[in-house]
Amino acid sequence: MAQNIYDNPDFFAGYSQLPRQVRGLDDAPEWPEIRAMLPDLVGKRVVDLGCGFGWASRWMRKQGAASVLGLDLSRNMIERAKADTADAGISYCIADLDSLELPAGSFDLAYSALAFHYVQDFSRLTQVIRKALISGGHLIFTIEHPIFMAAANPHWISDEEGRKTWPVNQYSLEGERRTDWFAKGVLKYHRTLGTTLNTLIDGGFQILRIKEFAPTSKQIQQMPELAEELERPMMLLVSAST
Amino acid sequence: MAQNIYDNPDFFAGYSQLPRQVRGLDDAPEWPEIRAMLPDLVGKRVVDLGCGFGWASRWMRKQGAASVLGLDLSRNMIERAKADTADAGISYCIADLDSLELPAGSFDLAYSALAFHYVQDFSRLTQVIRKALISGGHLIFTIEHPIFMAAANPHWISDEEGRKTWPVNQYSLEGERRTDWFAKGVLKYHRTLGTTLNTLIDGGFQILRIKEFAPTSKQIQQMPELAEELERPMMLLVSAST
Repeated sequence: MAQNIYDNPDFFAGYSQLPRQVRGLDDAPEWPEIRAMLPDLVGKRVVDLGCGFGWASRWMRKQGAASVLGLDLSRNMIERAKADTADAGISYCIADLDSLELPAGSFDLAYSALAFHYVQDFSRLTQVIRKALISGGHLIFTIEHPIFMAAANPHWISDEEGRKTWPVNQYSLEGERRTDWFAKGVLKYHRTLGTTLNTLIDGGFQILRIKEFAPTSKQIQQMPELAEELERPMMLLVSAST
Repeated sequence: MAQNIYDNPDFFAGYSQLPRQVRGLDDAPEWPEIRAMLPDLVGKRVVDLGCGFGWASRWMRKQGAASVLGLDLSRNMIERAKADTADAGISYCIADLDSLELPAGSFDLAYSALAFHYVQDFSRLTQVIRKALISGGHLIFTIEHPIFMAAANPHWISDEEGRKTWPVNQYSLEGERRTDWFAKGVLKYHRTLGTTLNTLIDGGFQILRIKEFAPTSKQIQQMPELAEELERPMMLLVSAST
């Protein structure tokens, strides 16, 4: 079973104050890129894997999705998602992506934001999703970029000229990574980019699009602290089809 | 036109002494992974883009390729390739990958080792290769990994615990990178991994395999200095089909 850090009171208190959790999708700078990857949602049956407070689940229903099933490991998240949602087309359930079961051929789109890097067995999950999608269905997800996750001490350093620099080491050593983020020892699983993409291909997916989030100059004008995201890839966005 | 660093006498003298240039493919630690990506070569018409001294061109003929066309920008390389080859099934020509033209539908396999990061317009080259391949043809290539190429000062540093660490900065700022490697100011073109893969997809290729070279424990036993390649991805291997 995955570590349920989101139900740790300290973690949850901090996490809930992130701008994207307070104000929603438009405060996630990668959201325009994700939107551009999404297929037309009208009439689609969607599963939202790691739905958190349900921001994306509600947005997809507003775009015309026939139904959305939002799944999250955290009781806190699911309770808050339910409280914030008044829409019979959206269901929320507690579920662990490491032991997830889904009915076969029941979804047109699987969506997941920043959840799969908590999953230990990505190969298993890929197969569960593949079977749950119709033929011609889509999987669109974001994860922390493996370059962002790999290092033993993943934080900004300076190069010899004082340039903001991201450290990379132990990249090919896959497995557990523990970081302090609102709580001590948050557990994530590092996989190389090759492993992530090959696992999808071996699971029967075709790779449609790979994006490494970088802010636009307009975004940097509005929020200068985003400029550092040009220095290293922090987030990987993937679109694949069955 | 691409910078022709391989015909710089200092560069050529140094480059020619690399183990893989002296002893051939078996001294390139990524070669077993490339071999595993290659399709059956019997009867195949191959174009080898950036063929250098012709090591791979000759190997592919020995595996049964019907013909191999080896292309390289460097007169030094092509002259040496011709001198080292006694096989009417292999032709060598001087060609610049930035202005390459190839006859349509004439090849089953396009192969390239460590050449495309010298190419300024990868989109143009992708389209030339796509048209030169038959339907169901393969493109298999290696490049320097964008994580290896991105930084302003791309060399090993230490993290705060003294661990060998690779610096990443200006990752999303694509374009020229100049490094000193056997000569001053060797010119390469940095593209993000997303750009490389999306250019292939937009050019009509299907991504089959992505590998980020990492040495095996046996290779590290035989050559302990390879262990550092576990710390950061140095080379990207891509297999795609039309």
